[in-house]
Amino acid sequence: MSSDVISFSRGAPSLDIVDIEGLKAAAIRAFDEDPARVAGYGTSVGYPPLREWIAAKHGVDVDQVLVTNGSMQADAFLFDALVKPDSPVIVERPTYDRTLLGLRQRRGQLHPVKVESDGADVAAAQSLLESGVRPVLAHIIPNFQNPAGVTMSLQKRQRLLALAKEYDFTIFEDDPYLDIRFRGEDLPTLLNMDDADKVVFASSFSKTVCPGLRTGYLVGPADFIAKIAKMATNTYIAPNMLAQATIYQFAKSGALERSIETVRGALAERSQVLQDALHKYLPNATCTSPDGGYFLWLDLGEDVTVDKLAPAALKRGVAVVKGTDFVVDGGQHSLRLAYSAVTTDQIPEGVQRIAAALDDCRVSDSGS
Amino acid sequence: MSSDVISFSRGAPSLDIVDIEGLKAAAIRAFDEDPARVAGYGTSVGYPPLREWIAAKHGVDVDQVLVTNGSMQADAFLFDALVKPDSPVIVERPTYDRTLLGLRQRRGQLHPVKVESDGADVAAAQSLLESGVRPVLAHIIPNFQNPAGVTMSLQKRQRLLALAKEYDFTIFEDDPYLDIRFRGEDLPTLLNMDDADKVVFASSFSKTVCPGLRTGYLVGPADFIAKIAKMATNTYIAPNMLAQATIYQFAKSGALERSIETVRGALAERSQVLQDALHKYLPNATCTSPDGGYFLWLDLGEDVTVDKLAPAALKRGVAVVKGTDFVVDGGQHSLRLAYSAVTTDQIPEGVQRIAAALDDCRVSDSGS
Repeated sequence: MSSDVISFSRGAPSLDIVDIEGLKAAAIRAFDEDPARVAGYGTSVGYPPLREWIAAKHGVDVDQVLVTNGSMQADAFLFDALVKPDSPVIVERPTYDRTLLGLRQRRGQLHPVKVESDGADVAAAQSLLESGVRPVLAHIIPNFQNPAGVTMSLQKRQRLLALAKEYDFTIFEDDPYLDIRFRGEDLPTLLNMDDADKVVFASSFSKTVCPGLRTGYLVGPADFIAKIAKMATNTYIAPNMLAQATIYQFAKSGALERSIETVRGALAERSQVLQDALHKYLPNATCTSPDGGYFLWLDLGEDVTVDKLAPAALKRGVAVVKGTDFVVDGGQHSLRLAYSAVTTDQIPEGVQRIAAALDDCRVSDSGS
Repeated sequence: MSSDVISFSRGAPSLDIVDIEGLKAAAIRAFDEDPARVAGYGTSVGYPPLREWIAAKHGVDVDQVLVTNGSMQADAFLFDALVKPDSPVIVERPTYDRTLLGLRQRRGQLHPVKVESDGADVAAAQSLLESGVRPVLAHIIPNFQNPAGVTMSLQKRQRLLALAKEYDFTIFEDDPYLDIRFRGEDLPTLLNMDDADKVVFASSFSKTVCPGLRTGYLVGPADFIAKIAKMATNTYIAPNMLAQATIYQFAKSGALERSIETVRGALAERSQVLQDALHKYLPNATCTSPDGGYFLWLDLGEDVTVDKLAPAALKRGVAVVKGTDFVVDGGQHSLRLAYSAVTTDQIPEGVQRIAAALDDCRVSDSGS
């Protein structure tokens, strides 16, 4: 492995687009303005002013919000509440690898529906439902999907919500990238269109501020949130008060809006530079062109498998994530490329390394 | 309820003994010295410099340490790893209410052994083992036990460890109060006496710094810690990096030692003032005289039940925790009193209110 690996693997903002000084100032204000609640135990619903801020952002009641130690922890609580062994669950194909892992650990029965250029194939979900499958949950990443980079259309959102009402299942709207839109109009969230308590929404400050403060949240029906709050109390009493008070001060001061602008601008540029480099150095591959978010999806063609390519790429000094990580089966000819942790000057070099690794694989294939 | 409730209920330091300025300075240094790791995801073992600091403190290898979002979360992972439905578990009687809850939720088969003035009745544990009970775990709070306030003798520690080796079970040494000793000599931890990988040790910075930073940890055999690290990755990727980096800077600077001195001094005084007030205003009750920690245990006598007393006390403006919370059955004539969240000037008034509430209960009994 090269000592200067270029990483397209992790969906985290590079340090140059994290507002460290703003966070430091926010932490100072948190200690100065509210020492008792920063130092005290708190309760499992989270730091009260941040909870209120999130409720206002999403236009919901405060008792519909629970702030957690990162959104993965929120997912874990939600899965523990809803998914029992053999519970049917609709998932997107491909989808976030840790979602698949969490559902498999709870032995959920996974029903993948393909992700199309306008989001999950809702007609396929409808066929599943009509065939008698009765899911407890449909997991959807509506905006700039991880890993596919596509966004679910308004029409599909409406249709999925209608199905959730008709067949009585929960939509888990997993939406950490919502604010990182580069172009086009914001679409309404499923949460905000929901008039039947069918949606539980999760998001995070990891993609808009930074991951190290591990602050995520759930928004859902008040009785469901109360149930999760009880589980959270029994797990850890309360989430991190210092981190949540810091995020609150960061948001209140306007630094969060500036941070979102910074991340959005940088990622828009990196996404474009990456697409340009892919067209130039890998002309036979096809990639999605995301309207926002952290990732794009690259289809390489049938003549290469990522089980060979990924280690060859790492040898060339570039880290990628194999498509196989994001599907129950298949994905052997695809990669997820994150453009969040690379700077624009690294991207063309990184893509050239992928191209060289592809050549290495082809040479070794033809030689065998 | 009085608007100025005096609380003997929660085991948290009062704000006047939390070093807010020191924590603020530590947070600033965390951002200044290590922005990449404070802002980044990190991994589930915790912030690496804090992990190393903890390993050095306990004289163990770094791969024996996992830093968590509070020690309750550490307990939850440990229980998930070891306790299946009907797994026999030895617990102290009385013991921390959240431990009992966590074990019950996992449907562990609880075997309580009485806490004596020198710690858990190890002879009773031996009888259980000889009768054929094969526990997966014995949960022990060795120092200044919560709620009983007593400390396990060296001899009992040695004997329990010998039993763990002979009968092959894990001792969960739950030791958050270790550093808050008022008098007497430190005893070796079970962890440090263990030569057979039988001990998993848990502690926390909640009792020495403050709870709001939600930082606890586990120390145990490296292979067991690796297993827990995998569970932690799948639950939340990584614990809070800002909080852990702040704790690390606080410890490194010497502020932690000063904080421990402050807490120890304040709690030694509060414990004594509380005992004096109990002897004065409740001469017929008996209480433990802790050598350290946050709590003492008060036996009231047979003529009053805490199910009546606790609400009567709250009406009089004093919060207590019922003995019944800390045992599988019984505890109707005892209270746990925490002297950590009260200042010395509140304590005599608080005890007088308990005495008045006792009178209220007796009057209502004789009138019924």
